[in-house]
Amino acid sequence: MPGTITTDEPIEVAIIGGGIVGLVLAAGLIHRGVNVKVFEQARNFRALGVGIGFTARTVQCMENINPAVVKALRSGGSVNASMDEKDPKSYLRWIDGYTQHREDDPDYQKMLLTLDAGINGWETVRRDQFLEDLVKVIPVGVIHLQKRLESIEEKDENDKITIKFIDGTTATADAVFGCDGIKSTTRKLLLGKDNPASYPQYTHKVAYRALIPKEKALEALGEYKTNRQHMHIGPNAHLIHYPVNLKMIGATVIVSDPNDWPLDKPTTARASRKDVEAALEGWCLPVHNLVRLFPEELDQWALFDLFEYPVPAYNYGRVCLVGDAAHASSPHHGAGASSGIEDALCLSTLLDEVSTRMKESPESKGKALKTAFETYNEIRRTRSQWLVNSSRRVCDLFHQPEWADPAKRVKAEGAFEEIKDRSFKIWHHDSAIMVQDTIRDYRERQDRAVKV
Amino acid sequence: MPGTITTDEPIEVAIIGGGIVGLVLAAGLIHRGVNVKVFEQARNFRALGVGIGFTARTVQCMENINPAVVKALRSGGSVNASMDEKDPKSYLRWIDGYTQHREDDPDYQKMLLTLDAGINGWETVRRDQFLEDLVKVIPVGVIHLQKRLESIEEKDENDKITIKFIDGTTATADAVFGCDGIKSTTRKLLLGKDNPASYPQYTHKVAYRALIPKEKALEALGEYKTNRQHMHIGPNAHLIHYPVNLKMIGATVIVSDPNDWPLDKPTTARASRKDVEAALEGWCLPVHNLVRLFPEELDQWALFDLFEYPVPAYNYGRVCLVGDAAHASSPHHGAGASSGIEDALCLSTLLDEVSTRMKESPESKGKALKTAFETYNEIRRTRSQWLVNSSRRVCDLFHQPEWADPAKRVKAEGAFEEIKDRSFKIWHHDSAIMVQDTIRDYRERQDRAVKV
Repeated sequence: MPGTITTDEPIEVAIIGGGIVGLVLAAGLIHRGVNVKVFEQARNFRALGVGIGFTARTVQCMENINPAVVKALRSGGSVNASMDEKDPKSYLRWIDGYTQHREDDPDYQKMLLTLDAGINGWETVRRDQFLEDLVKVIPVGVIHLQKRLESIEEKDENDKITIKFIDGTTATADAVFGCDGIKSTTRKLLLGKDNPASYPQYTHKVAYRALIPKEKALEALGEYKTNRQHMHIGPNAHLIHYPVNLKMIGATVIVSDPNDWPLDKPTTARASRKDVEAALEGWCLPVHNLVRLFPEELDQWALFDLFEYPVPAYNYGRVCLVGDAAHASSPHHGAGASSGIEDALCLSTLLDEVSTRMKESPESKGKALKTAFETYNEIRRTRSQWLVNSSRRVCDLFHQPEWADPAKRVKAEGAFEEIKDRSFKIWHHDSAIMVQDTIRDYRERQDRAVKV
Repeated sequence: MPGTITTDEPIEVAIIGGGIVGLVLAAGLIHRGVNVKVFEQARNFRALGVGIGFTARTVQCMENINPAVVKALRSGGSVNASMDEKDPKSYLRWIDGYTQHREDDPDYQKMLLTLDAGINGWETVRRDQFLEDLVKVIPVGVIHLQKRLESIEEKDENDKITIKFIDGTTATADAVFGCDGIKSTTRKLLLGKDNPASYPQYTHKVAYRALIPKEKALEALGEYKTNRQHMHIGPNAHLIHYPVNLKMIGATVIVSDPNDWPLDKPTTARASRKDVEAALEGWCLPVHNLVRLFPEELDQWALFDLFEYPVPAYNYGRVCLVGDAAHASSPHHGAGASSGIEDALCLSTLLDEVSTRMKESPESKGKALKTAFETYNEIRRTRSQWLVNSSRRVCDLFHQPEWADPAKRVKAEGAFEEIKDRSFKIWHHDSAIMVQDTIRDYRERQDRAVKV
């Protein structure tokens, strides 16, 4: 009977959104024999942003989701954030981008914090190239483009969920994953138009991004900095640059903005290099040298997240919010996508558990999925919400106005122990423990449900 | 020759300040054969504040400093912060002190975070009783009362340091430790009157403290809460209560204050219970029941720390700042004294090393001490400064104005992962590793010094 769940067929899921997290989740589920359809509203794939970084632990997470994802990352041209032939480790570095010293002063561009991220501890890649290679991992026929979500209807737990698109077509599935990003339509359908958590919230930071050919960056920054990630910090702004592949570096300037950014205004606005230069007036020479290589006309990106109004839950029956749709973070830890990839591993683990469970003890597939998604919410919520908070916090620490006041410098430098702790909390995440916790929590819930 | 350091005699040190940290340091140094004099400005010993808590790791730290310190803590009547005959563990609990629910609503006084501090993981004691028993640990003749510091003069590194008091007397020592608290005169002498780091800085929080007999607390809070530490939190304030011994509980209300507190104003002001009740207007019933037991007339304590202008260093030649004199923190982690006790273990370790070194390879005692104190600064600075920052931060998280807005409650609760991480960073400190690091750093500096 169409529209009814049958327990002896593979689980059938719909993924709303074909971004990095949606495709990684699809890869993980397909790898575990789940029947997957991905619905992407755009006409073709496009990645926003410039470069994206992943820690060694996140790459391990991808490996456990589906080894093909790691292959896509590598074939997409990922490189170590510290390109040093003699040292395979990655380091993240924070240096003084502001204080005016003579170049021969030992305090000139003082190193404020160097964090050792371990061997290949931080890989960076161009977003568009990674996405392009990720698409190839997904079998033909799984991805459906130009499918803009209109509604999701979940009736009885033994019925299929019905998904309607604005082109009038429909699809059905046992479960739906909203991987549709910070502006998630899935989220708005679940929470309602009047809920402030349905909408992104302005972080009061704007970003200017550029991809710069390495040979030009060398002139601006010198060999050492060009080949290694550096964050130049100062009052109310910072500049981060890092190699994104063998030929290019990515550079982003983030500026604090006390003003509001109305939701109805597009999140990108046209701007010029002069705006960036004005925001960094009086900063150190290497910062200006690099900004001079930004395009004369470029976009100003308003940065939004879900900090002010977090969603109350990640699970709604058999519909889940995943990645940015659930917990969009500002980009200051470079860990937003990683957090979505952790979600994908948790959900892949759970659907594998549900499939096994269905074979061993036939029961309502709908009920089993609902229980699994309670586990998903339990396991993923705390850490991913913490990331949203922490990303806001570290940016405020980078941007301390105190950097501009020599009498406040000792205080400003006191922030780095916290920055270190927060970075390590992200980098040292043990996804093997998360997988164990996921399985244990799900089985306990199942056992409780059976007893009831 | 008087006034000159001799290498074959025990190291002779002066401790300025006979508070908890000064006496614990004295106990640690005496235990290691150091010749100690303590100079206290007051006529007799008095402890400010009400109760004080120590983690199991801090108690271990005391044990390594001098087992007699732990005996004093216990004879002073310390108790587990969770007095539960069936469970030897300590727990710290944060609960909703604000949201108005009916008492039979499951959300009434909702538990927001319970942290397991381990077996006897958090001991509390009355400050005055601990101090009284601590004094007994120090041999007669070591402590000199009514000695108010006037100046410290360090000439050549081979000469004794001369300490002058305002009564016209002097003392000499190989090294001086300023354990004279947040208003440290030693700090002011070292940094100068014009340095803002010489003075405490207002944290924009005020405290009201009370000691309440247990039988009265039972009526206000019930048996469960009376015997267990709880932190009732809400917008712009919190109330903490905990058993301080078998007969009493300590209770403190902390209120955010947007105003300034001039440095020339006394840090305590007369206030009445009505002020406390006004600050907690509309809070839950148990909070009001407990506040009703506060004295009708009581002190308002302005809370100061060294957050805005941290001292640039903890070591100045052979003079060191220790405990609050170096890094006074607001009390919101309950770890200010613990941080000073960690300092005392570090310094006890170092003076032991210096003594051993002097016997093995006679060299300038003054130089050896100076090098040791460079190690002290290196080892202790980062963590103790972090505590100052973290204590401010957690209080702001406890006091989030969002608690008053139901639409912001999910956001407000998102703070607890951070509160957990910060608490564990304090509680799980491994002082054995600190001791190893201290010895290693000192020996490396000595080796470098010999090579130069």
